Amino acid sequence: MSKAVFYHAGCPVCVEAEQQVAASIDPVKYKVEIVHLGEQASRLTEAESAGVKSVPALVLDGNVFHINYGADLSALKA
Amino acid sequence: MSKAVFYHAGCPVCVEAEQQVAASIDPVKYKVEIVHLGEQASRLTEAESAGVKSVPALVLDGNVFHINYGADLSALKA
Repeated sequence: MSKAVFYHAGCPVCVEAEQQVAASIDPVKYKVEIVHLGEQASRLTEAESAGVKSVPALVLDGNVFHINYGADLSALKA
Repeated sequence: MSKAVFYHAGCPVCVEAEQQVAASIDPVKYKVEIVHLGEQASRLTEAESAGVKSVPALVLDGNVFHINYGADLSALKA
Protein backbone atom coordinates (compact mmCIF):
# COMPACT_ATOMS: atom_id res chain seq x y z
CA MET A 1 0.00 0.00 0.00
CA SER A 2 1.18 3.50 -0.81
CA LYS A 3 1.64 6.25 1.73
CA ALA A 4 -0.14 9.59 1.77
CA VAL A 5 0.74 12.24 4.34
CA PHE A 6 -1.41 15.32 4.68
CA TYR A 7 0.42 18.16 6.47
CA HIS A 8 -1.57 21.02 7.87
CA ALA A 9 -1.45 23.61 10.63
CA GLY A 10 -5.05 24.01 11.70
CA CYS A 11 -5.70 27.16 9.67
CA PRO A 12 -9.13 27.52 8.03
CA VAL A 13 -7.73 26.76 4.56
CA CYS A 14 -6.04 23.68 5.99
CA VAL A 15 -9.14 22.40 7.71
CA GLU A 16 -11.29 22.67 4.62
CA ALA A 17 -8.66 20.90 2.53
CA GLU A 18 -8.22 18.24 5.17
CA GLN A 19 -11.88 17.48 5.41
CA GLN A 20 -12.36 17.20 1.68
CA VAL A 21 -9.07 16.27 0.07
CA ALA A 22 -7.70 13.92 2.71
CA ALA A 23 -11.10 12.27 2.97
CA SER A 24 -11.33 11.79 -0.80
CA ILE A 25 -8.24 9.59 -0.98
CA ASP A 26 -8.81 5.98 -1.88
CA PRO A 27 -8.26 3.93 1.29
CA VAL A 28 -7.68 0.85 -0.83
CA LYS A 29 -4.58 2.41 -2.42
CA TYR A 30 -3.29 4.68 0.32
CA LYS A 31 -2.64 4.63 4.03
CA VAL A 32 -3.42 8.25 4.94
CA GLU A 33 -1.66 9.98 7.81
CA ILE A 34 -2.65 13.48 8.92
CA VAL A 35 0.04 15.57 10.59
CA HIS A 36 -0.71 18.86 12.37
CA LEU A 37 2.61 20.69 12.19
CA GLY A 38 1.46 23.27 14.72
CA GLU A 39 1.10 20.53 17.31
CA GLN A 40 3.85 18.21 16.06
CA ALA A 41 6.69 20.63 15.47
CA SER A 42 9.08 17.68 15.65
CA ARG A 43 7.92 16.70 12.19
CA LEU A 44 8.76 20.02 10.52
CA THR A 45 12.15 18.68 9.43
CA GLU A 46 10.53 15.64 7.84
CA ALA A 47 8.06 17.87 6.00
CA GLU A 48 10.83 20.17 4.78
CA SER A 49 12.88 17.22 3.61
CA ALA A 50 9.91 16.00 1.61
CA GLY A 51 9.81 19.39 -0.13
CA VAL A 52 6.85 20.91 1.66
CA LYS A 53 6.99 24.72 1.39
CA SER A 54 3.54 25.64 2.67
CA VAL A 55 0.52 24.02 4.22
CA PRO A 56 -1.84 22.42 3.52
CA ALA A 57 0.20 19.94 1.50
CA LEU A 58 -0.33 16.37 0.45
CA VAL A 59 2.64 14.05 -0.05
CA LEU A 60 1.81 11.04 -2.20
CA ASP A 61 4.58 8.47 -2.43
CA GLY A 62 7.14 11.19 -1.77
CA ASN A 63 5.76 13.73 -4.27
CA VAL A 64 4.53 17.01 -2.80
CA PHE A 65 1.29 18.65 -3.86
CA HIS A 66 0.65 22.05 -2.31
CA ILE A 67 -3.09 22.60 -2.02
CA ASN A 68 -4.34 26.18 -2.03
CA TYR A 69 -2.38 28.26 0.43
CA GLY A 70 -2.66 28.45 4.18
CA ALA A 71 0.73 29.35 5.60
CA ASP A 72 4.42 29.10 4.82
CA LEU A 73 6.28 26.41 6.68
CA SER A 74 8.62 29.08 8.01
CA ALA A 75 5.71 30.62 9.92
CA LEU A 76 5.44 27.43 11.94
CA LYS A 77 8.96 27.54 13.31
CA ALA A 78 9.47 28.72 16.84
CA MET B 1 -21.99 9.68 -5.48
CA SER B 2 -20.05 12.94 -5.27
CA LYS B 3 -18.44 14.65 -8.21
CA ALA B 4 -14.75 15.41 -8.63
CA VAL B 5 -13.48 17.38 -11.61
CA PHE B 6 -9.78 17.66 -12.26
CA TYR B 7 -8.94 20.60 -14.56
CA HIS B 8 -5.57 20.71 -16.23
CA ALA B 9 -3.89 22.02 -19.34
CA GLY B 10 -1.32 19.43 -20.23
CA CYS B 11 1.62 21.23 -18.63
CA PRO B 12 4.24 19.09 -16.82
CA VAL B 13 2.99 20.19 -13.38
CA CYS B 14 -0.53 19.29 -14.46
CA VAL B 15 0.39 15.86 -15.75
CA GLU B 16 2.20 14.87 -12.59
CA ALA B 17 -0.72 16.04 -10.46
CA GLU B 18 -3.19 14.29 -12.72
CA GLN B 19 -1.39 11.01 -12.59
CA GLN B 20 -1.05 11.02 -8.83
CA VAL B 21 -3.77 13.16 -7.32
CA ALA B 22 -6.62 12.32 -9.68
CA ALA B 23 -5.69 8.65 -9.46
CA SER B 24 -5.65 8.73 -5.66
CA ILE B 25 -9.31 9.69 -5.37
CA ASP B 26 -11.60 7.09 -3.91
CA PRO B 27 -13.74 5.73 -6.77
CA VAL B 28 -16.29 4.52 -4.24
CA LYS B 29 -17.01 8.09 -3.13
CA TYR B 30 -16.32 10.12 -6.26
CA LYS B 31 -17.03 10.03 -9.95
CA VAL B 32 -13.86 11.61 -11.34
CA GLU B 33 -13.88 13.61 -14.55
CA ILE B 34 -10.66 14.92 -16.09
CA VAL B 35 -10.93 18.05 -18.23
CA HIS B 36 -8.08 19.31 -20.41
CA LEU B 37 -8.84 23.03 -20.73
CA GLY B 38 -6.31 23.43 -23.53
CA GLU B 39 -8.32 21.02 -25.66
CA GLN B 40 -11.77 21.80 -24.27
CA ALA B 41 -11.77 25.59 -24.24
CA SER B 42 -15.56 25.50 -24.16
CA ARG B 43 -15.30 24.49 -20.51
CA LEU B 44 -13.23 27.48 -19.40
CA THR B 45 -16.38 29.37 -18.37
CA GLU B 46 -17.51 26.45 -16.23
CA ALA B 47 -14.08 26.26 -14.57
CA GLU B 48 -14.07 29.99 -13.90
CA SER B 49 -17.56 29.83 -12.45
CA ALA B 50 -16.41 27.10 -10.11
CA GLY B 51 -13.67 29.44 -8.87
CA VAL B 52 -10.70 27.91 -10.67
CA LYS B 53 -7.90 30.48 -10.96
CA SER B 54 -5.06 28.28 -12.13
CA VAL B 55 -4.41 24.73 -13.23
CA PRO B 56 -4.06 22.03 -12.12
CA ALA B 57 -7.11 22.29 -9.90
CA LEU B 58 -9.40 19.77 -8.32
CA VAL B 59 -13.04 20.62 -7.68
CA LEU B 60 -14.64 18.38 -5.06
CA ASP B 61 -18.38 18.89 -4.64
CA GLY B 62 -18.02 22.45 -5.85
CA ASN B 63 -15.04 23.40 -3.67
CA VAL B 64 -11.85 24.33 -5.52
CA PHE B 65 -8.43 23.07 -4.51
CA HIS B 66 -5.55 24.52 -6.50
CA ILE B 67 -2.73 22.02 -6.62
CA ASN B 68 0.80 23.36 -7.04
CA TYR B 69 0.94 25.79 -9.91
CA GLY B 70 1.01 25.13 -13.61
CA ALA B 71 -0.62 28.08 -15.38
CA ASP B 72 -3.15 30.83 -14.82
CA LEU B 73 -6.52 30.24 -16.38
CA SER B 74 -6.11 33.53 -18.25
CA ALA B 75 -3.17 32.03 -20.16
CA LEU B 76 -5.55 29.50 -21.69
CA LYS B 77 -7.83 32.05 -23.28
CA ALA B 78 -7.51 32.67 -26.96
